[in-house]
Amino acid sequence: MAKPIIVQKFGGSSVANIDRIKVVAQRILESKTKRNNIVVVVSALGDTTDDLVDLAAKISEHPPEREMDMLMSTGEQISSALVAMAIQELGHDAISFTGAQVGILTDDIHTKAKIQNISARSIRKALKENKIVIVAGFQGVTKNNEITTLGRGGSDLTAVALAMALKAQVCEIFTDVEGIYTTDPRIVREAQKIKEITFDEMLEMASLGAQVMQPRSIEVARRFNIPLHVRSSFSKEEGTMIVKNTQKLEDLAVSGITCNKAEAKITICGVQDKPGVAAEIFTQISKAGVSVDTIVQNVSHTRQTDISFTVLKTDLTKAIKASQSIAEKLKAGDVLHDKNVARISIVGSGMRSHRGVAAKMFQTLAENEVNIEMITTSDISVSCIIDQSQAERAVKALHKAFSLEG
Amino acid sequence: MAKPIIVQKFGGSSVANIDRIKVVAQRILESKTKRNNIVVVVSALGDTTDDLVDLAAKISEHPPEREMDMLMSTGEQISSALVAMAIQELGHDAISFTGAQVGILTDDIHTKAKIQNISARSIRKALKENKIVIVAGFQGVTKNNEITTLGRGGSDLTAVALAMALKAQVCEIFTDVEGIYTTDPRIVREAQKIKEITFDEMLEMASLGAQVMQPRSIEVARRFNIPLHVRSSFSKEEGTMIVKNTQKLEDLAVSGITCNKAEAKITICGVQDKPGVAAEIFTQISKAGVSVDTIVQNVSHTRQTDISFTVLKTDLTKAIKASQSIAEKLKAGDVLHDKNVARISIVGSGMRSHRGVAAKMFQTLAENEVNIEMITTSDISVSCIIDQSQAERAVKALHKAFSLEG
Repeated sequence: MAKPIIVQKFGGSSVANIDRIKVVAQRILESKTKRNNIVVVVSALGDTTDDLVDLAAKISEHPPEREMDMLMSTGEQISSALVAMAIQELGHDAISFTGAQVGILTDDIHTKAKIQNISARSIRKALKENKIVIVAGFQGVTKNNEITTLGRGGSDLTAVALAMALKAQVCEIFTDVEGIYTTDPRIVREAQKIKEITFDEMLEMASLGAQVMQPRSIEVARRFNIPLHVRSSFSKEEGTMIVKNTQKLEDLAVSGITCNKAEAKITICGVQDKPGVAAEIFTQISKAGVSVDTIVQNVSHTRQTDISFTVLKTDLTKAIKASQSIAEKLKAGDVLHDKNVARISIVGSGMRSHRGVAAKMFQTLAENEVNIEMITTSDISVSCIIDQSQAERAVKALHKAFSLEG
Repeated sequence: MAKPIIVQKFGGSSVANIDRIKVVAQRILESKTKRNNIVVVVSALGDTTDDLVDLAAKISEHPPEREMDMLMSTGEQISSALVAMAIQELGHDAISFTGAQVGILTDDIHTKAKIQNISARSIRKALKENKIVIVAGFQGVTKNNEITTLGRGGSDLTAVALAMALKAQVCEIFTDVEGIYTTDPRIVREAQKIKEITFDEMLEMASLGAQVMQPRSIEVARRFNIPLHVRSSFSKEEGTMIVKNTQKLEDLAVSGITCNKAEAKITICGVQDKPGVAAEIFTQISKAGVSVDTIVQNVSHTRQTDISFTVLKTDLTKAIKASQSIAEKLKAGDVLHDKNVARISIVGSGMRSHRGVAAKMFQTLAENEVNIEMITTSDISVSCIIDQSQAERAVKALHKAFSLEG
């Protein structure tokens, strides 16, 4: 029977410089036993990617994406070769591969390609020769042999996809934090490391602002049921396991609390309350290249209503412009905007079975004199948009109210 | 009929930074007409290669060569992508390729691989679409899809080999000098740019110290009769054509004069003058990893002789050590060495038909009180090892004596 395979992914901060690469090599060797095989995925060294982007920016405002991929993919090729050298220097055989060399076949949407298939033949061959395999993350190749990159969170995705293709036992995501916390430890000192969390909860937390992993690779892990282990590259402590179902007898009502300050709120006032208006508005907003997150429209008792939505702060100018032009066309009222908002969310699979969770959240915020501007819910989360200046107070209060302090 | 193809190679100093890359892009576009196709080969940006070597050196004293190739090949991939971007920014379609992508098939001797075959299919396809093609120099791929590099002068070799595979009209080598000169213009102000020179002469000059091109790629160009045009990337002046036979009615006796200060001289004194001794000596020197250049052993009237030879200064310590151990074994005398030597050579195909060329060289040196320590000749060159302090005087005198001042 083939030995169990562990896939390990090290991010840019873990391989920021040669000293850290040596630490990573040591770390990899400590995981390697006679009874397992290790496949490592690495991101580019610290600032390499930014440096390459800067070079391209000096040549063109909109560099061609196919050439950007040729350029960017070198970052991970460099770090993978260096990690392979560092492992060999410690006495174990190792070999690095580009995405193309391990057959990570993607579509041809340059700079944000999607993985279609992985052959991994070269990896299997190298593992049979007892080599530790290092794969350049973030990249693939089209069927026409064109180099592609996978976009944001691409190295995580490479790791999860390889774990799937190789039927790995676990995919370990090494990062600069100890794992997933009940909330941001920089806000709440009592935040606890979560031992186990479900894919659903992690996805919800990631999309609501927890920045440890991109939702994209969590989704793939969930689809193929690949256990993820998020842990620190600087310590040997166990981190957080992300799994299909946790081993807990009863889920907590709330597993974690997120706080996201990246969004701004826009309100189009006095919109006619008739069919097709919302469609018209958000079609135009989307055409302006703006992604909308939360949308709130309340029932109206007159023939007019206000429609509010949130967008990324970086898209705010575009979004206001598009909204004003739509408001004019629809003969609506003013377009208001507010940059000083934060989204506070409680997340937990247990919400499905626990009642009164949302009510407890609103009550806690009220007791702490935090005004709620917008509310949205999913089956395992409740989010409130509040004034940004009250965000930390709200997170602290909720963390305590839901007994997450351990 | 297919359009004629011009292969252009730009070295590291031509693409040292973004400003120069923009100049190179402009330069390439000026060569492009409706009636030709351009294929460009680029080296890595200025110091990139050194930076990558430094990174590896921080990890290992002897980094594995397969991984060095993974690492080093990124340098040319970066510059080729940036040049393609810069051309597109100027409004012409362009596409970059790695060595693997254009099918530069090599053997598997990492860090000094030899090209075995070039498919160039992807290049032909891109040229049909009227794209300017940019190829990452210095690299190839084995039949097992392993990335290789070609060693010193590798980008020149890529250019010449592509010119051969594509049946190009000419291979233009862009560099930071105007062409090949009758001698080093830093030594002799009156040095003239040579309009045309034969492969044989260029090979001789290159191996005797002219540093514009590596002998390796000139040999390939000679074998497949690919005209080379060595010219400046900073000016539009024609440079030097390197061709099979020059158009001149009569060859000059001497086409150029080289001066090489990279060698040192070693003499093993009092060696027994009997068969097999030279073989013994140079087998041992070679085993010590030292390449020997000129060897001089004169006839002896006793039963002992002195054997002198030159080695690269960088190999001198190793060479002395090996020589001393051999001298001891052979019961020979002292081992002397001299770092302060220079090799002065006159080169010219015309030597084959002109008589008295060597004599004129020796006479010129004598008139200028330059003592000759060693002499060697080939059919189109004569070299003298002299004291390094007299090198410039010797070159100036010879340049004048052979009427090279135009």
